Amino acid sequence: MKIELINVDEGIHQTDQELQGPEGQVLARLQRLHGGLSDGVDVLHLSNGRLDLKLLPTRGMGVWKGTVDGTPLQWNSPVQRPVNPAYVDPMRLGGIGWVDGFNELIVRCGLGWHGAPGNDTRRNEAGEVISEQFLPLHGRIANLPAHYLAVQLDGDTLIVEGIVDEGCLFGGWLRLHSKLQTTLGSAEFEITDTVTNLAATPAESEILYHCNIGEPFLEAGSTLHTAVSQVIPRNDRAVEGLADWSRYQGPQAGFAEQVYFMDPLSTESGWATAALADSKASRAFAVHFATATLPCLTLWKNTGATADGYVTGIEPGSTLPNPRQFEREQGRLKTMQPGEQVTYQLRFEIAPDVQSTAALLSRIEETQSAESCNVHHGPHADWCS
Amino acid sequence: MKIELINVDEGIHQTDQELQGPEGQVLARLQRLHGGLSDGVDVLHLSNGRLDLKLLPTRGMGVWKGTVDGTPLQWNSPVQRPVNPAYVDPMRLGGIGWVDGFNELIVRCGLGWHGAPGNDTRRNEAGEVISEQFLPLHGRIANLPAHYLAVQLDGDTLIVEGIVDEGCLFGGWLRLHSKLQTTLGSAEFEITDTVTNLAATPAESEILYHCNIGEPFLEAGSTLHTAVSQVIPRNDRAVEGLADWSRYQGPQAGFAEQVYFMDPLSTESGWATAALADSKASRAFAVHFATATLPCLTLWKNTGATADGYVTGIEPGSTLPNPRQFEREQGRLKTMQPGEQVTYQLRFEIAPDVQSTAALLSRIEETQSAESCNVHHGPHADWCS
Amino acid sequence: MKIELINVDEGIHQTDQELQGPEGQVLARLQRLHGGLSDGVDVLHLSNGRLDLKLLPTRGMGVWKGTVDGTPLQWNSPVQRPVNPAYVDPMRLGGIGWVDGFNELIVRCGLGWHGAPGNDTRRNEAGEVISEQFLPLHGRIANLPAHYLAVQLDGDTLIVEGIVDEGCLFGGWLRLHSKLQTTLGSAEFEITDTVTNLAATPAESEILYHCNIGEPFLEAGSTLHTAVSQVIPRNDRAVEGLADWSRYQGPQAGFAEQVYFMDPLSTESGWATAALADSKASRAFAVHFATATLPCLTLWKNTGATADGYVTGIEPGSTLPNPRQFEREQGRLKTMQPGEQVTYQLRFEIAPDVQSTAALLSRIEETQSAESCNVHHGPHADWCS
Repeated sequence: MKIELINVDEGIHQTDQELQGPEGQVLARLQRLHGGLSDGVDVLHLSNGRLDLKLLPTRGMGVWKGTVDGTPLQWNSPVQRPVNPAYVDPMRLGGIGWVDGFNELIVRCGLGWHGAPGNDTRRNEAGEVISEQFLPLHGRIANLPAHYLAVQLDGDTLIVEGIVDEGCLFGGWLRLHSKLQTTLGSAEFEITDTVTNLAATPAESEILYHCNIGEPFLEAGSTLHTAVSQVIPRNDRAVEGLADWSRYQGPQAGFAEQVYFMDPLSTESGWATAALADSKASRAFAVHFATATLPCLTLWKNTGATADGYVTGIEPGSTLPNPRQFEREQGRLKTMQPGEQVTYQLRFEIAPDVQSTAALLSRIEETQSAESCNVHHGPHADWCS
Repeated sequence: MKIELINVDEGIHQTDQELQGPEGQVLARLQRLHGGLSDGVDVLHLSNGRLDLKLLPTRGMGVWKGTVDGTPLQWNSPVQRPVNPAYVDPMRLGGIGWVDGFNELIVRCGLGWHGAPGNDTRRNEAGEVISEQFLPLHGRIANLPAHYLAVQLDGDTLIVEGIVDEGCLFGGWLRLHSKLQTTLGSAEFEITDTVTNLAATPAESEILYHCNIGEPFLEAGSTLHTAVSQVIPRNDRAVEGLADWSRYQGPQAGFAEQVYFMDPLSTESGWATAALADSKASRAFAVHFATATLPCLTLWKNTGATADGYVTGIEPGSTLPNPRQFEREQGRLKTMQPGEQVTYQLRFEIAPDVQSTAALLSRIEETQSAESCNVHHGPHADWCS
Repeated sequence: MKIELINVDEGIHQTDQELQGPEGQVLARLQRLHGGLSDGVDVLHLSNGRLDLKLLPTRGMGVWKGTVDGTPLQWNSPVQRPVNPAYVDPMRLGGIGWVDGFNELIVRCGLGWHGAPGNDTRRNEAGEVISEQFLPLHGRIANLPAHYLAVQLDGDTLIVEGIVDEGCLFGGWLRLHSKLQTTLGSAEFEITDTVTNLAATPAESEILYHCNIGEPFLEAGSTLHTAVSQVIPRNDRAVEGLADWSRYQGPQAGFAEQVYFMDPLSTESGWATAALADSKASRAFAVHFATATLPCLTLWKNTGATADGYVTGIEPGSTLPNPRQFEREQGRLKTMQPGEQVTYQLRFEIAPDVQSTAALLSRIEETQSAESCNVHHGPHADWCS
């Protein structure tokens, strides 16, 4: 039975009704926060008996944080609590105000654009400018609340659905239908997002899944394991760390971020994987993603001090997080026709011990073994704006 | 008996108490929405037995939508639900962020300014610049919540009063006292707005009633009926549609808006009318307005695809929706002295059938018959910025 | 016993539980406002039996207004009610949007910066620009809600604690721990604020206590009494009023603000005082502050019409309210090391009658008698940006 927890059209907002499992255990409940910058934020608490997740319908259906077998899935942002988008001004700090609400394990960037802030100039075939606007960091979707949220237990699968609309008159109308599901007792969850162009006119759309992992998966000696054909440092700063691009150091105050763009290799079934294993390969956090619609992979290394946000981002995307204009010029940006839908699929897997971690990494190595990995010595003009 | 539904000073916010009619029918009730961009929005549901209206105290006392005898009074904005102003940044998109909350049947633009975005430079008599600021689209009032809301039944008249303040230190203090009333069982409602300059210093003020009508009143073959002495296309795009300026086509994806400025003719009692009739003149939506304080009329034709917002705007105003500086330079902008009040009056009438539509249109023709209508071939420098 | 009224982490937000005194009197209770721009604002009502205060946890723990023995402690802003920061855009009006929420008796400006709006350019030792951003008026803290609020009665001392965080990824992390206390039956209250740099990297921080007093303390003939060694008019406008810099006229429509910077003299215990006495010295509002961390004093005279905000500001600060870059260049701006704390102390005293006012002013004169006061004829390059 599907329980609607939020349905604005029907006047539904339920914080009293829980979704219970066969043994009466609470699988899902909605909590509203009051006070601080979290005022008015809804948190959806999920528990499959082993995996706990806190989802944020108020923040575009992001995943704030979680635990698996008690191990935290999170990072330590200076922004400690979920922030109501009403308190976020994306134009702050020259267009990076998005960071004022940034603390999630998984946060979507998109739907109209998702990259670094910058001017976006569109031209017609004659080369004449037809529109020009400044697009702030990472798009709107993380700061748009879901107007619909439902939970259900289907067999032993716990399913969450959320709907978020992004649009306005003269500004298009993209809809995110987000589905997160997890099997009772598992250490995995899946996200299946469908974005639809509800407008009658074509619309550019891109998405980036900003998956952010901190301690204990991230520590001195942690390693990123992934199968890719290309690794390209975004800029000179990334070049500085190129020799150790897949290795991590411990928290270091003042560390300036390093970003690498990659071309992921997928298995025959079309899935690619990037996994962060700790220094002893005793646990790993894996992001699997379907490359048909998420062909790009970005790695964000931001190993500053713990108090400043010691974190790494594994970021599958439909494009790279450059300014949208650059992605358009490189031919990576897609235009959705009226009514067109695109589905994005990701699966998150936590390997809790040495055995499962070894198995996970072995599967990644197998994929890599089919092709060599070309680590570029510097930024590439087609990839780096 | 007047029921206060919102009174911030008294700590009153009532969603439990209804205003009932003599037969126990619910005439008015306040609902608070939770979730999506509507979170925290109050909707005042009104019903006179024939006419239902949903008012938005949270959005400057706008009228979201309604029905008459079950016929919808609304249009289809990509923004489907009322938006809390906390989620609207007027500076977005280069100063047209106002559209992020735009979906109302009737929305006020004002009170300090209401026109297209633009720089506003004030000079003293010596021509020296004394202030300069960028004013975003359509002013603040639609994104200011009412701090007072009351309903009452006076005889057979259902009355709503709302108060909205616009001001700040160094920024003046204008108050909107809005009164909407409707007779039980009628297909009409009136708005009587009083704007007061509560500051001790003079203040410029202008207002525009952005009345937006969609299907079924708007369809291929619909016609605008009004009595005017001048019709002026705002720009070249409007010139393209000049031959059919009062006629409408059906939804057409990619249609670029056309705007016409008009000088309305009023009856002896000082009222002008603009009415949208459907293709068979089988129903019409009429906006009557008192020209003493609303001497300007703007027609907005935006007949894009239904999903993109198929709509036309009938917009009586104290001035034209040009940037405020232009209206000042043309001598149309009024300055209110300390304590000065100005009252704006509008009446909305729905003609539900062929007979009532014919009678309505006949009255308009009669007003027009007294004077010719001069349709200008192009923009006029005094009217078009 | 400490009662937590707000604790976001624990899901606590109490509007039902009161803090009571030994005789069952209500000492503290939390109210949530609904409607208008106050929607979602929490007001903490304090009463020590003689002194009533309304605190605003939603607005950085500011003090909205109060009464002593029934005498109002407030001023008349065109913004009549507390404004939820969700409705404030600091970038409005060219960076002075802060005024949209400004109506408090005591409002903090800070924590990262607090002065006039302006570009802030940081350079390294080689003189190269390392960061550049526009900082709007008066900083963020007044528009950041407290995520923690507790009240307690300790002996006969009523204590309020509130915690507000200011920070974001790449933007530092400063915490305000605010403590306000008052003895039952007294006409005084104290503020002890501790600001901590929770980040692992150094951070610039400055604070200004914008204490704003209106009628009846402010009237024609009111006088500011303070002991200072320097008085410097901020600009030519302030020079115009220099002869009467410490005297006030009655409300005068169109009065343009005058600002004076001062170097306060402190007693041996390290406290300075500025007090506003009415025309008959029959009552006074005194701001005492510890100069060890609040070495600067700014006087804001804004004696416009009552409806426009007839008010004067007594503003102790860690620096002067110039753009931060200017304060940095003058060597007044402090950098806090990781983990460093700084404590700011203020005491507010209301002298309710002639005798207590005379005693208060006498103590101020005594402090001044130790040193002469140098009133500068014009702005000083080291003080005035």
